Formats: sequence, structure tokens, C-alpha cells
Amino acid sequence: MAKKILVIHGPNLNMLGQREPKVYGKVTLERINAELKALAKKEKVELDIHQTNIEGDIVNLIQKAKKRCRAIIINPGGYTHYSIAIRDAIASVKIPTVEVHLSNIYSREEFRQKSVIAPVAAGQITGFGKNSYVLGLMAAINLIKGK
Amino acid sequence: MAKKILVIHGPNLNMLGQREPKVYGKVTLERINAELKALAKKEKVELDIHQTNIEGDIVNLIQKAKKRCRAIIINPGGYTHYSIAIRDAIASVKIPTVEVHLSNIYSREEFRQKSVIAPVAAGQITGFGKNSYVLGLMAAINLIKGK
Amino acid sequence: MAKKILVIHGPNLNMLGQREPKVYGKVTLERINAELKALAKKEKVELDIHQTNIEGDIVNLIQKAKKRCRAIIINPGGYTHYSIAIRDAIASVKIPTVEVHLSNIYSREEFRQKSVIAPVAAGQITGFGKNSYVLGLMAAINLIKGK
Amino acid sequence: MAKKILVIHGPNLNMLGQREPKVYGKVTLERINAELKALAKKEKVELDIHQTNIEGDIVNLIQKAKKRCRAIIINPGGYTHYSIAIRDAIASVKIPTVEVHLSNIYSREEFRQKSVIAPVAAGQITGFGKNSYVLGLMAAINLIKGK
Amino acid sequence: MAKKILVIHGPNLNMLGQREPKVYGKVTLERINAELKALAKKEKVELDIHQTNIEGDIVNLIQKAKKRCRAIIINPGGYTHYSIAIRDAIASVKIPTVEVHLSNIYSREEFRQKSVIAPVAAGQITGFGKNSYVLGLMAAINLIKGK
Amino acid sequence: MAKKILVIHGPNLNMLGQREPKVYGKVTLERINAELKALAKKEKVELDIHQTNIEGDIVNLIQKAKKRCRAIIINPGGYTHYSIAIRDAIASVKIPTVEVHLSNIYSREEFRQKSVIAPVAAGQITGFGKNSYVLGLMAAINLIKGK
Amino acid sequence: MAKKILVIHGPNLNMLGQREPKVYGKVTLERINAELKALAKKEKVELDIHQTNIEGDIVNLIQKAKKRCRAIIINPGGYTHYSIAIRDAIASVKIPTVEVHLSNIYSREEFRQKSVIAPVAAGQITGFGKNSYVLGLMAAINLIKGK
Amino acid sequence: MAKKILVIHGPNLNMLGQREPKVYGKVTLERINAELKALAKKEKVELDIHQTNIEGDIVNLIQKAKKRCRAIIINPGGYTHYSIAIRDAIASVKIPTVEVHLSNIYSREEFRQKSVIAPVAAGQITGFGKNSYVLGLMAAINLIKGK
Amino acid sequence: MAKKILVIHGPNLNMLGQREPKVYGKVTLERINAELKALAKKEKVELDIHQTNIEGDIVNLIQKAKKRCRAIIINPGGYTHYSIAIRDAIASVKIPTVEVHLSNIYSREEFRQKSVIAPVAAGQITGFGKNSYVLGLMAAINLIKGK
Amino acid sequence: MAKKILVIHGPNLNMLGQREPKVYGKVTLERINAELKALAKKEKVELDIHQTNIEGDIVNLIQKAKKRCRAIIINPGGYTHYSIAIRDAIASVKIPTVEVHLSNIYSREEFRQKSVIAPVAAGQITGFGKNSYVLGLMAAINLIKGK
Amino acid sequence: MAKKILVIHGPNLNMLGQREPKVYGKVTLERINAELKALAKKEKVELDIHQTNIEGDIVNLIQKAKKRCRAIIINPGGYTHYSIAIRDAIASVKIPTVEVHLSNIYSREEFRQKSVIAPVAAGQITGFGKNSYVLGLMAAINLIKGK
Amino acid sequence: MAKKILVIHGPNLNMLGQREPKVYGKVTLERINAELKALAKKEKVELDIHQTNIEGDIVNLIQKAKKRCRAIIINPGGYTHYSIAIRDAIASVKIPTVEVHLSNIYSREEFRQKSVIAPVAAGQITGFGKNSYVLGLMAAINLIKGK
Repeated sequence: MAKKILVIHGPNLNMLGQREPKVYGKVTLERINAELKALAKKEKVELDIHQTNIEGDIVNLIQKAKKRCRAIIINPGGYTHYSIAIRDAIASVKIPTVEVHLSNIYSREEFRQKSVIAPVAAGQITGFGKNSYVLGLMAAINLIKGK
Repeated sequence: MAKKILVIHGPNLNMLGQREPKVYGKVTLERINAELKALAKKEKVELDIHQTNIEGDIVNLIQKAKKRCRAIIINPGGYTHYSIAIRDAIASVKIPTVEVHLSNIYSREEFRQKSVIAPVAAGQITGFGKNSYVLGLMAAINLIKGK
Repeated sequence: MAKKILVIHGPNLNMLGQREPKVYGKVTLERINAELKALAKKEKVELDIHQTNIEGDIVNLIQKAKKRCRAIIINPGGYTHYSIAIRDAIASVKIPTVEVHLSNIYSREEFRQKSVIAPVAAGQITGFGKNSYVLGLMAAINLIKGK
Repeated sequence: MAKKILVIHGPNLNMLGQREPKVYGKVTLERINAELKALAKKEKVELDIHQTNIEGDIVNLIQKAKKRCRAIIINPGGYTHYSIAIRDAIASVKIPTVEVHLSNIYSREEFRQKSVIAPVAAGQITGFGKNSYVLGLMAAINLIKGK
Repeated sequence: MAKKILVIHGPNLNMLGQREPKVYGKVTLERINAELKALAKKEKVELDIHQTNIEGDIVNLIQKAKKRCRAIIINPGGYTHYSIAIRDAIASVKIPTVEVHLSNIYSREEFRQKSVIAPVAAGQITGFGKNSYVLGLMAAINLIKGK
Repeated sequence: MAKKILVIHGPNLNMLGQREPKVYGKVTLERINAELKALAKKEKVELDIHQTNIEGDIVNLIQKAKKRCRAIIINPGGYTHYSIAIRDAIASVKIPTVEVHLSNIYSREEFRQKSVIAPVAAGQITGFGKNSYVLGLMAAINLIKGK
Repeated sequence: MAKKILVIHGPNLNMLGQREPKVYGKVTLERINAELKALAKKEKVELDIHQTNIEGDIVNLIQKAKKRCRAIIINPGGYTHYSIAIRDAIASVKIPTVEVHLSNIYSREEFRQKSVIAPVAAGQITGFGKNSYVLGLMAAINLIKGK
Repeated sequence: MAKKILVIHGPNLNMLGQREPKVYGKVTLERINAELKALAKKEKVELDIHQTNIEGDIVNLIQKAKKRCRAIIINPGGYTHYSIAIRDAIASVKIPTVEVHLSNIYSREEFRQKSVIAPVAAGQITGFGKNSYVLGLMAAINLIKGK
Repeated sequence: MAKKILVIHGPNLNMLGQREPKVYGKVTLERINAELKALAKKEKVELDIHQTNIEGDIVNLIQKAKKRCRAIIINPGGYTHYSIAIRDAIASVKIPTVEVHLSNIYSREEFRQKSVIAPVAAGQITGFGKNSYVLGLMAAINLIKGK
Repeated sequence: MAKKILVIHGPNLNMLGQREPKVYGKVTLERINAELKALAKKEKVELDIHQTNIEGDIVNLIQKAKKRCRAIIINPGGYTHYSIAIRDAIASVKIPTVEVHLSNIYSREEFRQKSVIAPVAAGQITGFGKNSYVLGLMAAINLIKGK
Repeated sequence: MAKKILVIHGPNLNMLGQREPKVYGKVTLERINAELKALAKKEKVELDIHQTNIEGDIVNLIQKAKKRCRAIIINPGGYTHYSIAIRDAIASVKIPTVEVHLSNIYSREEFRQKSVIAPVAAGQITGFGKNSYVLGLMAAINLIKGK
Repeated sequence: MAKKILVIHGPNLNMLGQREPKVYGKVTLERINAELKALAKKEKVELDIHQTNIEGDIVNLIQKAKKRCRAIIINPGGYTHYSIAIRDAIASVKIPTVEVHLSNIYSREEFRQKSVIAPVAAGQITGFGKNSYVLGLMAAINLIKGK
């Protein structure tokens, strides 16, 4: 199996740049994806990038990764805080998963400070804007390499 | 941009008339839509009406409204109580949004008394049966007119 | 019994216009009452409008309405969040009651997000500034007319 | 000091007979007072009976009892559940106080199951309709007689 | 069926007089029973008095009362706060039940302020020492007589 | 209407056999469906079996059952713990519904011990692996037959 | 060891038929036992059936089963919600145990929605009236047979 | 506007000296007022002192201060713990307010340890008996002088 | 009164050795009792040892100790966490009581970390296997000797 | 013992002036100490002033005060909200202690609204910037003088 | 490695004898240490005794014990209730640790009833005054000897 | 100011390699520091690395960084969950701070899932073993460079 990594952008991340820029910054999803692809190229891994607003589609994407990908990077967006369905999907495929967030969820509303995904992720990176994704990709590559 | 208003009927609202009539009354969704259209015509606004049971589709509808609509009327149905994804969609498009409910959610089960949508809505109208929608449309028109 | 409607402005609503304008807007209580009266005239209902800061006086007003009024519009102000006495008064007179709030109480402090009045009201309208009252009067008229 | 007993009927008790008869029964306040007076006469105690909807008036009545009454019977109505002011008044006059309720507050809504008055009362009688008052008067007489 | 009333003294009530006299007074169970019997004789009702420390025995006593007694007076002692088994027994026999307590349970430890029995009792009398029983018997007689 | 029964396998149940075998066992969904079909044949009922990861699709399936099925067997998977939308769908079609779970959800994480579906189901069967489904089908047949 | 199964009916189940028929149905315990025995005969297992209202007796029954029975079916009645003693007994004998309830405990009072027994049971069947027992016996037989 | 300061003594403070002296000391309200007046004279500020047991009257006093006073000293008594109405009045007049308590509310009952007034006060002084008032007056004078 | 000490082994302790050996060790109750008796002999105190699974029997044992024993050692087993009846019995006899547990209840399930007995015990020893009893007996002897 | 007063500035108070000036103001710790010393001189008391970031050092300072100081003024900074060690130190030396805070801790984050120190302090002064210290010193002097 | 045992007295234990004697008794730390040394001598173990008020110093002491001691006896004083740092130190050195308390922490304030240390200790002894230490040393010696 | 970065290893991190290797891995602190220094050299930043077990020392280190460092990397160890003092120190120096954890704190005990530090950090990286530090250093460098 090649070193393919699944990248999932959850709900409303397609609105980046236009969406509450004080919270999420002005960077667009395209720009984030471009940076990720550049790093992937350099590190010789392949990326499979998706954005969807539908919870069940995220479950589908994760299940399909079971045979094709060696790591997952996921920003579950609003689903972070309640989607046991996504959590169960991650647990069922047993692929190391890095949870990332653009904003620091721990300095926001009470309900955003609880991730139901985190307990089944390998780790979590939160608060560094687009760099949360870049650091997340590095973390994923390290997990694949067993470093 | 014309005075277009998006109307979203959330999950199970297509069952109106057949569904627990003691709670929701006997009126059908068709009848509610007809009343809304009549009022819209009188007030010279255009309506874009949708019903869907899928959370992510509601997110999609809200996102698409960003460029096309000047107000949203939403009855999020069961998603009212947990859909941070819909909440984030409303916050990200910054279109004034009126949350409506047929029944008085505050005289029902404990879990129905908490709306995660309300904090990002302009306001909420609850308990007046089909009139919750009619009053909601008036409220939306006032918000557009800045009255 | 004529179509008389009792309107109760609870504590601190006499301060409107001067009071935290960022939260409550600049409109005065006089202006709200004037709009309500104009609409009442048009709809051929009579209004009985009161403002008081004393909880027990609100109870008295509601009790006296039993024989004289066919609907109540109430903004219970700060009493919204704890006055079981007012709640019991509404429940005891069995007149359909519309609870209104100028600000969206669900986007404010935690304690303001719980109304002890709402469970015995017919419905609640919150967040539309002076229009909460106007919509509330429409709702009350519909309740009387059985529409 | 004569064997005078203060009887306080709190908010909405003047509505008895008309008010939610399934919960409170059909008996009127007049009838309750008549029964109490008959028993008082038999037991050779004097009664001082008041009904008011205003929390502060109940505080006033209790304070005035300090020099004039040897026991208090109080149905604090809706204030039962939050009036620290009434609680403090009872604690400050140190007159033995019997808290009574017509309905069984422990088989009703969650919030009615907590009395802030009870901890400073001598005891509480709840659930026996008008007999809660009659038994309460007997209890008060026993407290005075030190039986 | 004769006017027989079941009286149940729950756990540790046989220790009365010796047990924490500051809380429970110096009166013995024998003295309480004697007062109850005297009143019963006067009121022409028959009493069936039991004391037991075993929860299941209380359930047994209540079940047997179904065919023999017209009211129950129960001081469930420590079981007050958790015995769903006793609660279910009372609910299953549908005999009007008066819950009594010597001490004012609402001025004691937090855990004593919750009775799981009260919601299925007709009413509760608490805080009047031995008079809680005497008043409880009067209440029970009134319930039988439908007064 | 024929004795048709809708069977819904919720999110991640298509992963059975590969998914956390210590928790869910090694049986596959195909095998469970085969056992159900065999029993259905014997009992002369027809089955309509679906698996989907999308919450709204489950709502759609339930709504469509209203005219076609006489009972529902549902394993809501991760949605068990938060999907008010699915709960409302079940309540709105008024078809007797049996909730089943492979694992004993009451011996797992705290959040899995609360089902928002159970209060509107006829009953729940949990912890017997594939037999939860088999017993669930028997229960459903009994409900149809009014046994 | 023969295929003997212990059946325990907890407190108040001897009142079945007379006890709150809206909740528990009209079936008697005798009828349930007869159905269980018929099925046992057919399935060639032996039953050991007991009813007791005393918590400690249930503990005794479970302990004695250790050497004699291969499965337990228990309806712990009111003890379901607090009896750690019964829970510990089940855990200590390590016999597969099926918890059954006539009514759907998840659609009743809050306190009935928590079973302290369930985490140590093999599984739980709730809400199917007498069929909860019948299905429970089937489940127990499957557990013995390792199906 | 002269340097006038409003002093509000809330419910039961007129009982000082007679009321639970172990908690509140033996000093009377007259003595406290005399000390305050002496200090006011020395500091060349004018005092407007009121005591009332009625919550709404406190709201009235605060509202009237808007045009006449430059600071408020308030001991809200029992209303400290629930009066959102008084809190809103203070917030609406925007006069710097000093909350004082005779006893140390943080070493008393749990419910006394929460002040709903404090978040809108400039500051709070608690536990120093009559000196809480004297220090409160100094604090108020400093607030006026901008020291 | 001789230096007699009551030792109570609560529910399921008769299963020691066979019961969850990872939690409770392999030691039997006989062995523990033998060690206790040996130490008692050496220290010249007499032991009165009982095991029972019935809550009310434990209450009975404690009550009977009032006149015969000078200390109590109790392992309340599962009753530790809810038996107010046993707690009240200990409080009522006023004999110094040592609560012991074989396992460290504070490193187990949440519900085991709360003892309702501990607040009325002299002290508690937990986590040392059979030595919890031995140390408990030493503690009891010291309490008798006033050391 | 001379009229010596210990003043303790807890963690981060040495950063005053540079630290979040919107919350804490621009005044420096030096300036506060200077004002305190001036007042001390006038009032003829001696001050012993310390700042430390180490919790245990605060405990040490308080213990040493036992023989040398007659009052303590303490701003426990962040330790306010969890240091039982400091609380116990204050309780163990029995020197009257005044707790002060620059900001109004009751209008800040939820966790800042609970002081574990306050229940053992004589009183608390909060919200008046540097004047909290000045008023605190006056309060301390009054406590020493028994005024 | 010799049979060396580390004894840690946490914050404020150096105040013993002078500190709240009703709670902690009149015994001094010197006396406790003397008793411990006498017993250690008899049992042929060596003690390493420390008292410190600084949390981090306790962490340091525990870490240094890793190579030198075979058991730890710790009274963490006020740190008992929040010091995860001390808890982690104990967990990291894997030396069997006995937690002791002079007073019965379970009969004191709510916050004292939770030890964050206990879950990583071998066991806990609480409520026996200086004997808690003596019994703790015996427990530690048994743990070393594997008795 | 040069590009100096402060690295703080909190309590018990000096035990790495020996401490619970299943949770924290086998890597030593020396090895982590070596990797950090190598990366720092490559990225041309200077590191200032400290380990301490004392909470107040961490506060001191952070305060001193104010004039010397441009970023902070901190693993607050056990203090993560309660040290408001460290939180306040970070907030007061306003240097961008990266919180790192070796283990995934969100898959551990409930109390470890709450960081009181995170709300004032720029971001948090958790769960990647030594790579949490490496990624943290990259994040810090990006923050300095404003990337």
C-alpha cells in the first residue's frame, strides 16, 4: 500500500476566507490544500482531499480509506462535538488519525471545548490556523514512518 | 440582490398533518407554504422553499443562500437541539435568520428546551402553530427593510 | 367580552432608550406603545397597557385580567428567569399569553436562556426589538380569533 | 401575649376554586378561612389572616408578627421555591412557623420539589388540600402549647 | 372493609428515645403508639402497627394491606431516600398513604431532603416530632372519610 | 397491508466482522441478514433490509415505511445517542419499533449508556450479539400479531 | 451440570395483574411462569423460579446458583436502580445473566432509566411485557449453547 | 449634580440587632446610618438612605437615582441571590455601585455564596459587620472622585 | 461490659476467594476470621463475627450491639454506597465504628468512591486486602483503650 | 505584640502595570505598597510586605505570622481558586485575614467566581483596584482594634 | 535495597497541636514521628521523614525515593484534594504508597471528601488521629513483606 | 530581541523513560531536548530549556521570559489541569505559547481532559509522543515568523 493520506475537511470549511475571519482567518481552503500538496510532494506521500457538509459522507470516506490510506487528517468542523458516527468510523478502520482545528477550540464557547473525536484520534492539533493542517500532515507522516 | 428569502423545513416536517397532531396540529406543509407564498406576494418578496431530512443538505442550502437570499426562515426540526454544523453554517453566511417552531418547545421534554441554533439566529418564534411561520416571515421582511 | 388585550411591561422596561442601548436598542417604551396602539386600532382590539417593577403587581394585573381580557402580551423582564409567582398567575387565569423579549435572550448570559414563564405561555417571540411586541400582538389577535 | 397565630396565604391563593382545580381542588380561600376560624375558636386561639401577591408584603407581615403572634402558618405559593427574603424574615423573627401546601409538591414539576422556606420552618405539611391548613393549625397550636 | 389503618415504623425507629435525642427527641416508640391508639379509639378506626428494619418486609406489609387496610401511615426512616421497592409497593396497592417524619428532613443533610416515597404518597408531614404521627393519623382518617 | 418489517442497520454496521471484534464479535452483516431472512421465511413475514451511514437517509427510510411496513427493527449505531431527527421520525410514523444493539451499551462508555431513541421505541434488546437482531425480529413479529 | 436456569422475579412482581395495569399490563406472574415453563420444556432446559421482595434474598438466590445453574434471568424490579449488592452478587458468580423488564424503562421516570445491574449482565431486554421474559429465556438458552 | 450617594438597605435589614445576632451582630440599622452620615459629613457628600422589603421598590429607588446620585451602596439582603430585576436596574442606570454584606456570605450556606448582583457592581465588600458599610462608603467616594 | 467487638461482613463477602480474585484476592472469609481471632486473643478482646447479605439484618446486628459491644468493625460491601439505614443504625448506637474495605474503593468505578457510611464512622481503612481487617481491629482496640 | 500586619501579594502580582491593564489597571505593585505604607504610618501600624509566586512560600509566610502579626491582608492571585493549602494555613494560625482582589472577580470567568480562601477569611474586598488594598488595610486595622 | 520507608508530612502538618485542635487533636508532629520511629525500630525498618509546605518539594521527595525507598507513607494535607502533580509522581515511581489522614475526611467539608491521590495509592487510612500514621506504617511494612 | 524560545518541562517530566512507559513511551527527556536543539539550530533559533517540579518556579520562568523570549513551549504536566497561577503568568507576559502533551490527554481520565492552560495558549498539540514537542517547536517558529 502506497503512502496515501486521506484529508477530510468537514462542514462549513468550504466557506473559509469568507467565514468569521476574526475566528478562522482569511486563508481559503484552496490555499490550505495547495500548501498541503506542496509538502506532500516534498515528503513523497500522496493526498486524497475531500470536503463535505454531510456527516454520513464523512463516515463513508473514512470506511473507504481502510484499504487505501495509511493515515487520516480530519477537521470534523461542527461535527467534532457530537458525531459518534464519525468517531465510530475512525475506531472501526484503525488507521492513525490526526484531528486538526484552525482556531483554538479551548478558548471558545464551552460546547466547542469537548471533542468526541479526540479520544479515538492519535492526537490533536488546534489553534494554529492553516499551520494546524501543515503540522498535522507532518504528524501523520511521522506516524506512518513510525518515527 | 432581489428580496429573496430562503425557507427551510427541517427533518420530519414533511410529515405534518399526519405526525402527532396533538403536538403539531393538523395543518399540512403544503398549506403552510401556500400561506407563506400568499403573504410573500403581498409583501413583494420572493420565497425559496425547501424541505429535507438530511443535516448536511441544510448546511448546503444555507451556504448557497449567501449570494442569493437576504433572509432565512428555518425550522430545524430535531436538528435544533444538536446541529452545530447548521449553527456554524448560519454564522458563516451572516444572513439574518429567523428560527421558528410550530409547538412551544419550552413546554415539552427537557432536551427540546435547548436550541443550539438560537444563539446565532436574529430571533426565535415558537408555539403558534402555522402562525409561527407567518410571523417569522413578517419578522424576516422587517429585518430586510431595517424596520 | 370585548377583544381586550392586556400588555404588561415588566421591570426596567420603563428605562428603554436609556438602558444599555447596544442590547435593547434606542427605541422608547412610549414609541412601542404607540405602535401597538396603532396596530390595535387597525385590528379593532382594545389594549390595556401597564408597566411596573413590582413582581406582585404583575400577579395582580394578570389576575384582574381573568374577567376582562382575552389575551395577554407580557415582557416579564428580569422576572422571566425566576418568578414562579407570575408563572402560576398565568396558569391560573387560563388566558392565552404571548411572552415577548426585545433582545435574543438565547445569545446572552446563561441565566437569561431559561424562562420559567415560557412553559405556561402559548408561545414566545424573542430577539426582534420592538417588532417582538408587534409580532406578539399579531400572535395574540390570531389566538383570539382562533386562526 | 395572647395566643395569636398569623396565617399567610401567598400569591395566587386568592384564585382558589377557579385555579387549576385538578391540582388545587374546588375549595375556595373563604371556605378554608372559615374552617380555620371555627377550629381556632374551639381551641381558643386568635387568627390574623392575610393574602397578598407581593413578596415584600409577606416579609412585612412576618416582621410585624414578631411582637404580636406566637406562631405562623404560611403557604408561600410560588415564592416557596426562591424567596430567600421570606426565609430570612422567618429566621429573623424566631416564631415557630408551619409551612403548608394544598397539593403534594413532591409529585409535581422538579422545581416545585425544592422549598427554600422549609429549612427554617418548624415543619411542613403538604398534599392534603384544605386539610393541610387544618392540620397546620393543629400543629401550630401544639407548638405554642409545647405539646 | 373496616376502617383499618396500617402504621409502619421503618428502620431504627425502634431506637427512639435512645437515638440522637437532639434530632429525634426523647419520646419512645411505645409512647407514640399509645397516643396513636388513643386517637384511633376516639375516631373509631383500627390500627395495625409494625416496626421492621428490613426493606423487603415493609414491601410485604404494604402488599398485605391491599385487602385489609384503607390507609397507610409510614415513616420509612433511612429507606425514605432510596427505596424504589417501597415506592413501587405503595403505588401498586393504591391505598392512600401518609408519609411522616419526626425531624424536619429539609433542615438536615442534603441527601435527607429528597424522598423517593413522597411522589406516590397522598401527602407528607415532617418536623413535628411525635405530632407528625398524630397529625398523620388525622390526615389518614380524613382521606378515608373523603373529607 | 402485508406483514412487512423494515430492518435498518445504522452507521458503521457495514464494517461488522472487521470492526473492533472484541466489542462487536466476528459475525458479518451478511450473516446476520441471512439469519433474519431464514427466520422471516419461517414466520411468514417479509423483510426490507437497509444499511446506511447517513442520518437523514434513516429518517427517509422510516417515513417511507409508514404506508408499507408494520414494524421496524433498528440498530441506530452511533446515532443512538443524539439523533433527535431519527427519534422524531419513529414517533411520527407510529409503527412499533424494536431497538437492537449487538454489544451491551450499558457496560461501555458513559455516553453510550443513553439512547435518545429508546423512549419512543416499543422496547430495546441489547448485548446478545447477532442474537439481539434475532430476538428483535421475534419481538417485532409478536408486536404485529398482538401477542 | 444440567441446563438449569434461575429465574428471579424481584419486588412487587407478585402484584402483577393488579398493579398499575396501564404500565405493566394485565398478565399475572402465574401466566408468565407458565409460558416460561412451556418453552423450557420444549427447549429441554430446567427452570428454578423465585419471587421475593427482599434484596438480600435475591443475593442469596444468586449465590446459590453458582453451583447449580448455567444462566440467570432476572427482573430486579425496583432494586434495578440502586442495588449494588445484587450487582456484586451477579458479578461474583460469573453466570451469564439476562436482565428483563416488562415496561420500557427508558420511556418512564428519569430514575428508572438507569440500571445498576445492566453493566454486569450479558444483556438487557425491556419493554415487551411478558414477551420480555420469553425472549429473555431464549437469549439465556442461546448463551448456554454458545450460539 | 451634587455628590449625592444612594444607600439601600434590602429586606430584613430593619431587623438588625434583633435578628440572628450570632450572624449579624448586635448593631442596629440606626447606628449604621449614624456612622455613615458622620463620615458623609466629613467627606462632604450627601446620603439618601432607604430601607425596604419590596424587591420592586429597590428597582424604583435605583431608577430614580439615575438623575440624582453619583454612586450607590446596596446591601440587597436575601435578594442578593436571585433578583435579576435589581441586577438589571443597576446595569441600566450605569451608576457605580458598591455591594456590601454584614456577614461573610462565603462562609455561610451554599446558596448565599452566589450573588447575582456582584457581576454588575463595581465591587463587593463582605464580612466586616457595620464596617462593610463604612468601607463601602469610602469605596463609593473614591469611585466618584476617580481615585 | 467486656471488651467485645462486633465484626460485620456485608453482602457477597461470603464469596471471597471465588469472587473476582483480581479485585478481592484469593483469601477466604474463614482465613480472615481466623487471623482476626488470633489477634483478638493476643489483645484480650472478644469478637462477635457475622456475615449476612440482608441490609436489615445488618441494622439489627448493630442495634443489638448497643448493650453488648464496645466497637464495631464493618465491611458494608455493596451497601456502602447507598444504605442510609445502616448509616442511621451506626449513628444511633454511638459505638465507635471502623469501616474497612479489601480493595481500594477509590481506584474503582465512580459509584464505589462514595461511602454513605464513612461520615458516621470513626475512620476508614481501604485497599490492604485482608490486612484492612487486621489494621481495622487494631484501630478498634485503640479506640476502646482511648489510645 | 506590636500592631504588625502581614501583607501577601500572590502569584503574578509583581507583573502589575504590565499585566492585562484593561483588567488590572496601570498601577504598579510599588505604588500600592507605597500607599499602604503611608496609611500604616498614619494609623501607627507596622507592615510586613511580601510577594511570591510559590504556593508553599505563602503557606510558610502565614505560619510565621502566627507569633508576629495581628492581621493578614492577602491577595492570593490565581491560588484563590484552588489552594486548600493556603486556606488551611489561614485556618491554622487563627489570625484575622482580609482577602483582597484588584478586579471584580465576580464579573470575570466562571472559575474566578469561587474563592476557596474566602470561607476562612474574616471578609473579602473585591473590584476596587488599588483601593481594594487600602480598604483592606482599614478593615484589618478595625479588626485589630475590635471596632 | 534496605527496608527504607519515606514518610511525607504535607502542608500545615508542622502546625499540629496548635492547629484547630478540635479537628486534628493536640498531638504534635514530633510526638507522631517519635512513635513512628519506635515502631520502625521494633520492626527493623528505617524511616526517612520530611515535612514541607511546597507541593513541588513533595514531588521531588517522591522521585528521589525511587531508588532508595521501598514504601511511602504520605499525608498530603491540603494537596490531597487537587495535586495531580503529586499523584503523577507517585504513579511514576511505582513504590507502594499508603495515604493517611488524621481526621476523618469523609465527615468534613464536601471538598475534603475527594482525594486525587487515593486512586494511585495502595490504600488509605483516615480518621484515627496519630494512629492513622501508626497503622499506616504497619500497612507499609506488610506491603514490603508481601504479607 | 533574538529569536529565543523558552521550553518548559513541568512536573515529573524528568522521569520520562522510567515513568509509565505504556502511557508516555520510552524516550527520555534528554533525547527530546537533543531533537529540539537540532531543529532549533537548523531553524536558527535559540532555546532556553528548563524542567522543574515546582509550580511557582514555572511562573517565575514565564515572567522572566517577558523580556528575553519570543515564544514559549510548555508541557505543564499535572499542573495542566488546575494551575490558574501558570495560566495567569502566560496571560500576563503576552508571549505566544504552545502547549504540548506527549500522550493524548483526551483518551485518558476525565480530569486530564480539561486544560486550564489551553484557553490562554496560542494552540495545543497533544498525543504524538516526542513529536508533540517537535511539532510544537515548528508551530512556535511559525508564530514568531508570523507565518
